Amino acid sequence: MDDILLRADDGAICTLTLNDPGRLNALSTAMLTRLESEFTSIAGDPAIRVVILKGTGRAFCAGHDLREMTAARQSEDAGRAAFQALFALCTRVMLGIVRLPQPVIAEVHGIATAAGCQLVASCDLAVAAEGTRFGVNGVNIGLFCSTPMVALSRVVPRKRAFELLVTGEFADAGEARAMGLVNRVVPEAELSAAAQALAATIAGKLGPAVRIGKRAFYEQAELPLDAAYALAGEVMAENMLLGDTAEGITAFIEKRPPAWAQ
Amino acid sequence: MDDILLRADDGAICTLTLNDPGRLNALSTAMLTRLESEFTSIAGDPAIRVVILKGTGRAFCAGHDLREMTAARQSEDAGRAAFQALFALCTRVMLGIVRLPQPVIAEVHGIATAAGCQLVASCDLAVAAEGTRFGVNGVNIGLFCSTPMVALSRVVPRKRAFELLVTGEFADAGEARAMGLVNRVVPEAELSAAAQALAATIAGKLGPAVRIGKRAFYEQAELPLDAAYALAGEVMAENMLLGDTAEGITAFIEKRPPAWAQ
Amino acid sequence: MDDILLRADDGAICTLTLNDPGRLNALSTAMLTRLESEFTSIAGDPAIRVVILKGTGRAFCAGHDLREMTAARQSEDAGRAAFQALFALCTRVMLGIVRLPQPVIAEVHGIATAAGCQLVASCDLAVAAEGTRFGVNGVNIGLFCSTPMVALSRVVPRKRAFELLVTGEFADAGEARAMGLVNRVVPEAELSAAAQALAATIAGKLGPAVRIGKRAFYEQAELPLDAAYALAGEVMAENMLLGDTAEGITAFIEKRPPAWAQ
Repeated sequence: MDDILLRADDGAICTLTLNDPGRLNALSTAMLTRLESEFTSIAGDPAIRVVILKGTGRAFCAGHDLREMTAARQSEDAGRAAFQALFALCTRVMLGIVRLPQPVIAEVHGIATAAGCQLVASCDLAVAAEGTRFGVNGVNIGLFCSTPMVALSRVVPRKRAFELLVTGEFADAGEARAMGLVNRVVPEAELSAAAQALAATIAGKLGPAVRIGKRAFYEQAELPLDAAYALAGEVMAENMLLGDTAEGITAFIEKRPPAWAQ
Repeated sequence: MDDILLRADDGAICTLTLNDPGRLNALSTAMLTRLESEFTSIAGDPAIRVVILKGTGRAFCAGHDLREMTAARQSEDAGRAAFQALFALCTRVMLGIVRLPQPVIAEVHGIATAAGCQLVASCDLAVAAEGTRFGVNGVNIGLFCSTPMVALSRVVPRKRAFELLVTGEFADAGEARAMGLVNRVVPEAELSAAAQALAATIAGKLGPAVRIGKRAFYEQAELPLDAAYALAGEVMAENMLLGDTAEGITAFIEKRPPAWAQ
Repeated sequence: MDDILLRADDGAICTLTLNDPGRLNALSTAMLTRLESEFTSIAGDPAIRVVILKGTGRAFCAGHDLREMTAARQSEDAGRAAFQALFALCTRVMLGIVRLPQPVIAEVHGIATAAGCQLVASCDLAVAAEGTRFGVNGVNIGLFCSTPMVALSRVVPRKRAFELLVTGEFADAGEARAMGLVNRVVPEAELSAAAQALAATIAGKLGPAVRIGKRAFYEQAELPLDAAYALAGEVMAENMLLGDTAEGITAFIEKRPPAWAQ
């Protein structure tokens, strides 16, 4: 039996592959549990500097597992406790991406819908194949994409987010790029190479500096301007005190490559 | 004497028409009072699922009624109380759009300036005719568009908003689309049909799900990320417990149209 | 010895020129101290209505002075106190732009990197020459641009900001325009004229209205929607009570130019 979530490490790059193509890589309880577990493992792994999240089959991810959710309606409370637990688990996974020390790149193809689109929005960066379609289309079946909206509305302009949520319509890759949902769009044949190249770029940076920066990025985003600066100023001073940063700056002044310990 | 605000319901779609073309549909006290009253009425009308807001004559809306405001200067306090009351009323109308359970689509043509541009920014969605011009140009007469800025700066990028506010210059429909102020731009002859089509799309969704979603959209937007997710997760669980949502999901699994009670 | 910061006033337009081309106009302690001092002076100068910030030589500004920072490592605390003081000073300058009563226009050419890019992001408006390159590329030397990120992430979409910060790659002027970092891009030969024209447009407005508006712009941006409206409504009422605003509105009604005292 195939594992529904594959992990492959290649040097400092960890690739997580959603591998439940028969269900369009649905975010079932089993899949979310595995993602939460892997993110916990990666967070504690200093060898990993960047993560790629991708999917097998014809879709990146089509969102929650509707059959599993429907089955939960048989319980005495009509599913309430199960639904609350599911969305709490899903939220831990999405917040797990934001709070992971390493940057996460979504490598997206086919379709990314509902919680699958939320995954893309939650990743720090996203590369998409031409032809990919994005939607927060739960409204079409009577389930407004309220949790996906939390991630989506923080990366795309407000009226565009509202339009996608309330119409259930799809955006193509070019539109997703224009609205800020993805960073880069490439032909499908070049998708994997483009994600790898972006990951290699990040893996080539000083790991501790990237970790310091990612954490500060999301912390300062929720603060008023002066508090954000107070935080960031402290973070910069700490970053300056890293031995490898001293070497990086000296190397730059001396016009030579840095010899970093980490 | 014609009514300055017309309401026409067509099934689940309510159309409100600003009908004071001689004053370019100015947001006079009378007009704002009528808008507030209609929004209160619509909020309590379960048959209405979506609202279109448009204007008659050559402008969508040119902002406040400057003659009425000037007349208020004759009072003992030079108009202070009248101005405070006017802006408080205007704010109730703008917040009334945001808090209306039903989505509101601005159908915009001609010009949308000052508080008229604020109306567009405040609506959940906007469709504009080619040739429409947008401005927050009060600065040209010495009255900085401070209240329009509240709505505008939440839907367009910060430097673009500042530019429009401080230069008093106009943006055309294409620019308004690019900056996120409007969702769609169409030839003027197709404007009404485009707004109707968008409204019909929304009216075809499950009404309670759309209401749940719109409310959550604006609530979560003002919360930190984890609090936003806590709210949205609870909202999703409640949404799942709607009978019509159960039917929508079952119908999707069974590949048939949903038979919704609402 | 040339002054590292030049100030030239021309009517209501004040031009500040970073003039340390041998160091690519680095934000050394001396430069930041001069900027802080000039902004304090300009803030109290009612004759100045708008500020242009530009640089001499081949770069607008290449960020902090790495040699000066490296020299500070010789102290007993390895530079900690010096770095904290430097970033606190830099933050006062950046906040000084935001809190300056007058709008500030960045006139950008060549390169704007790290804290130099932060300067552009912190200005209210920016005009750039074609060919200008923008980066928050400290990550390339092991120093994540955490303080520049505070300004950058408030003017450009989140995923685009993260990409620039973590890859250290440059954006060209067209990309900077598309993402909201600059307002206008012109051929380098027209750069000065474009900045002057924008400044002249702003200088032609009623000064007190612009000051009222700029202050409210940044204050309301950090408030929840209803608090933002409460603030802006009060600001509008105060603005209405200015004598020159009364004249501006009357002149508009009478279709003549305003005769403003200020």
